[in-house]
Amino acid sequence: MSFVNIIENKRYGRELTDEEIKIFVKGVTDGSIPDYQISALLMAIVLNGMSDREMTTLTLEMADSGERADLSFCEGIPVDKHSTGGVGDKVTPLLLPLLATFGVTSVKLSGRGLGFTGGTIDKFESIKGFNTAVSAEDFPAMIKETGMVLSAQTPNLAPADKVLYALRDVTGTVDSIPLIASSIMSKKIAGGAKALVLDVTCGSGAFMKTVDRAEELAKAMISIGKLAGIKTVVVISDMDQPLGRTCGNTLEMQEVMETLTGKGAEDVVKVVCTIAVNSVKLAGKTGGLNDKELYGECVRRLTGGEALKKYFELLASQGGQLSAGGPVYVELPHEAMRVTAPVDGYIKSIRADAVGNLSVLLGAGRQTKDDIIDHGAGICFYAKVGTYVKRGDVICSLCHGIDRNVSEDLLFDVMEKIYDCYEFSDEPVEERDPIIMVLD
Amino acid sequence: MSFVNIIENKRYGRELTDEEIKIFVKGVTDGSIPDYQISALLMAIVLNGMSDREMTTLTLEMADSGERADLSFCEGIPVDKHSTGGVGDKVTPLLLPLLATFGVTSVKLSGRGLGFTGGTIDKFESIKGFNTAVSAEDFPAMIKETGMVLSAQTPNLAPADKVLYALRDVTGTVDSIPLIASSIMSKKIAGGAKALVLDVTCGSGAFMKTVDRAEELAKAMISIGKLAGIKTVVVISDMDQPLGRTCGNTLEMQEVMETLTGKGAEDVVKVVCTIAVNSVKLAGKTGGLNDKELYGECVRRLTGGEALKKYFELLASQGGQLSAGGPVYVELPHEAMRVTAPVDGYIKSIRADAVGNLSVLLGAGRQTKDDIIDHGAGICFYAKVGTYVKRGDVICSLCHGIDRNVSEDLLFDVMEKIYDCYEFSDEPVEERDPIIMVLD
Repeated sequence: MSFVNIIENKRYGRELTDEEIKIFVKGVTDGSIPDYQISALLMAIVLNGMSDREMTTLTLEMADSGERADLSFCEGIPVDKHSTGGVGDKVTPLLLPLLATFGVTSVKLSGRGLGFTGGTIDKFESIKGFNTAVSAEDFPAMIKETGMVLSAQTPNLAPADKVLYALRDVTGTVDSIPLIASSIMSKKIAGGAKALVLDVTCGSGAFMKTVDRAEELAKAMISIGKLAGIKTVVVISDMDQPLGRTCGNTLEMQEVMETLTGKGAEDVVKVVCTIAVNSVKLAGKTGGLNDKELYGECVRRLTGGEALKKYFELLASQGGQLSAGGPVYVELPHEAMRVTAPVDGYIKSIRADAVGNLSVLLGAGRQTKDDIIDHGAGICFYAKVGTYVKRGDVICSLCHGIDRNVSEDLLFDVMEKIYDCYEFSDEPVEERDPIIMVLD
Repeated sequence: MSFVNIIENKRYGRELTDEEIKIFVKGVTDGSIPDYQISALLMAIVLNGMSDREMTTLTLEMADSGERADLSFCEGIPVDKHSTGGVGDKVTPLLLPLLATFGVTSVKLSGRGLGFTGGTIDKFESIKGFNTAVSAEDFPAMIKETGMVLSAQTPNLAPADKVLYALRDVTGTVDSIPLIASSIMSKKIAGGAKALVLDVTCGSGAFMKTVDRAEELAKAMISIGKLAGIKTVVVISDMDQPLGRTCGNTLEMQEVMETLTGKGAEDVVKVVCTIAVNSVKLAGKTGGLNDKELYGECVRRLTGGEALKKYFELLASQGGQLSAGGPVYVELPHEAMRVTAPVDGYIKSIRADAVGNLSVLLGAGRQTKDDIIDHGAGICFYAKVGTYVKRGDVICSLCHGIDRNVSEDLLFDVMEKIYDCYEFSDEPVEERDPIIMVLD
C-alpha cells in the first residue's frame, strides 16, 4: 500500500486500519516517510478526527516506537501523574511526597517549561545541587530508598511522538484532541505507567480554553487508557487564573514549602489533594478510608508535616542542598516592584497565559529553547479572583533574581502590561473552584 | 506573519487574506516555505475549502509566479480551450481548424497523456514530422500564417502551480475543487487567455465522476474567470464512455480525418461544435448568426471540407508530412484482436477509465513518465452505449503498431479485462448525450 492511499483514506474521513497506523508510525520513526506526507496526514487527522480505536493504536504504536521503561521494581502499582501545563502549577513537588506517605511510589518524568507554562524540572533546579538527570539504572535504588524519583525525560521514549510533535509545531496541527491525547498517553505508556492521574488544565492559562474542550480531551485519554489497559482518571482543574500565589521557579518552590508547613494557598491544597485521593485509590492504598476521609487525610498529611518530611527525603536523595530553614536556592527572588489596584472593586479575572508570558519576560522562562532562566524571577499574587481590593492595594509584585540587573524599563513595561491581565468588577465575583470535575 | 499562522487560519476555516495568499505563492515559488508546511496548508484547503475570492487570488498569484504569455499579436480575441481530460478525446485537433474558418485564432498549449487519459501532444506526434516544440517567438508568424499554433507547454508558465501540482500528487490533496480550478485557470491566464471555453468532462473516464462535482468545478472556474476578467464558458461533456470510435494516438488522428470528411462519430461532432459555438461567440465572430444557425454552420464547416483545409494548413505549418491521402503517420495501427459480445443485449455501459488503462497497457500511453509510446496502439469501439448487439458481434478491437511485436499473452489479458468494462442489458438503453450542460 502506498502512503498516499493512507493519506487519502483519512482525507475522505475513513477510519485508518491498525495496519495503516502501524505503517505510519514505523515510517515516521525510521524516517522513510517524507515530512510533507506526514504533515498532510496530520492535517487530515486534525480536521477529520480519529476514532477511539485509531487513537489507541496510534498511542500504542508510538509508545512502542522506542524502548518502554520497566517499572516492575516498584512495589505495588506505581501511579503516574501528568498535567497538561499551567501557570503557577506546583502540584508535582507536593504530590510526590504526599503519595509517598501512603506508600504510593512515583517515577516522575518531567519536562522543562516552554512558552507561558512553567516546567517542573526548572522548578526543582532552583534548589542548589538537585540533580534532575537521573539515569534509569538508578531508579530502582532511589525508589527503594524514598519511593520517589524525579527525572528529566529520557530521549529514547516514544521517538515517533518526538518527530510528530516537532512537525506539528510548525504545521498548524498542534490543536487536535486525538493528536494531543495520543502524544501524552504514548509517553506515559512508554514511561511504564500502569495507572495514571491526568490533570487536564482548563482556561486562559491552559491549552484547553473551554470546559467542553478539556472534557473532550479527558474522555479521549480515558478511552485510550481503557483500550490500552491503563487505569486512567482525569481531574479537570481551573487554569483561568494562575494556581496559588506565585509563578516563577524559586518562588514556586518557596510556595511549596509554605504549603507543606500549613501556610499554603487553598487552591493548591485542593488540586494536590484531589489528585492524591485518586492516585491513592488507583494504587489500592486507601487503607479502607472512604473518599471524604481519604481527602481529609491527604490534607492533614500535606499540610501537617508528614509530606514535608518526605519532601526533604526526595531533595536529599537527588542531591538537593538543605539548610536548617529548608532548601537552599540557586537564586533568591527580589521583589522589585509592587503593582497596586488601579480602582476599587472585586477582581473579576486574571489572564493566566498573559501573566505567564510576563513572567517569562521577567526571566522566569525561556523565549527560545536556548535562553537561560533567572530562577529568582516571577510574579507573586497578593489577591486572586473574587477578592475585593481598594485602589492602591497591592495586587501582585514583580520579582527577579536578587543578584540580577534588571532594567527599570523592563519592569515598568511588564507592570503596564500586567494591568491588561486584570479585570475588576463593582459587583461581587465568586471565587473560582480550582477543581472543575473528576472523570474516570 | 509566520507561515504557521496562515496554516492555522485555514485549519480553523477562516478565509485567507490576499496578503496571506501572496506570501504562500511567493514562498512556494522561491522555495522558502518547506514542503511540509505547504502540504499541511494544502490539506487544510482540501478539507476547509476556499471562497471565490481566495481561489481567484490564488489563481492570479500563481499565474504571475512566472512569465505571462503575451498574445497581443493575435487579431481579435484569442479563445483558449481546455479539457479536464478524457478517453478518446480528439476535440482539439478538430476544434482548432474549425475555429480558424471563423477567423478565431488559437494558441493552444497542450500536454502529454499520463494515466488513463490521452494527451493532445502525443496525438499530434503520431503525424510524421509534426513539431510540437514550437518556441514562443515563432507564435506570431504562425498565427499570421494559419491562425493556429499548437505547442507543448512551456516550462516557465505558472511555476508555483508546478510545485503545488507535484506535491499534491504525493500528499493526497489532488481532489479539491479550489485547487483544481486555480491550477487550471492559473495556467490558462499565464498562457495569455482573454476568453476561455472549458470542457469539463464527467463520468467514469473523467476526474469528475458525478455531474454535481463537475458542476461545482465549472462554477468555481467561471467564478474565478469573472473575478479575473476572463470570459469563461464551461461545457460539461459526458465521459462515462469513451468519446467517439477510438482511443489511441494514430487511431484518434485517423478518426479526426474521418470526422473532417463527414464520416465521423456523432458524439465527437456534437462536442466539437458545441465548444466551437461558444468559442466563436466569445470571440465575437458569429457574423450575426443565432445559436442554432451557428451550430449548423459549425457542423457544415467541420464535416464539409472547410475545416479539413485548415487542418492541413496547421499540419503543414508545423512540419507534419502530408501525402495525397492525408497525413503520414509515424506508426500505423494493426487490428490485432477483435472482441465480440458475450451475450445478446443492449450495451449499458463502457467504463471509460478502465478502457483507457487497457489502452495504456497496449502501449498507447505511459505507465511511468519515461515510457515510450506505441503510436499505433489503442482500441476501436464498434458499438457504443445504447447499441443492441448479438452474441458474437464485434464490440471493439485491440490494436498495436503494425511493426511491433506484441505478445499474444498481453492481448488475451487485455481482452479478458475489457469484458469487465462492459455491461449489457436486456432492456433497451438510451444513447448517452455527449453534452450534459453548458454554463457561463
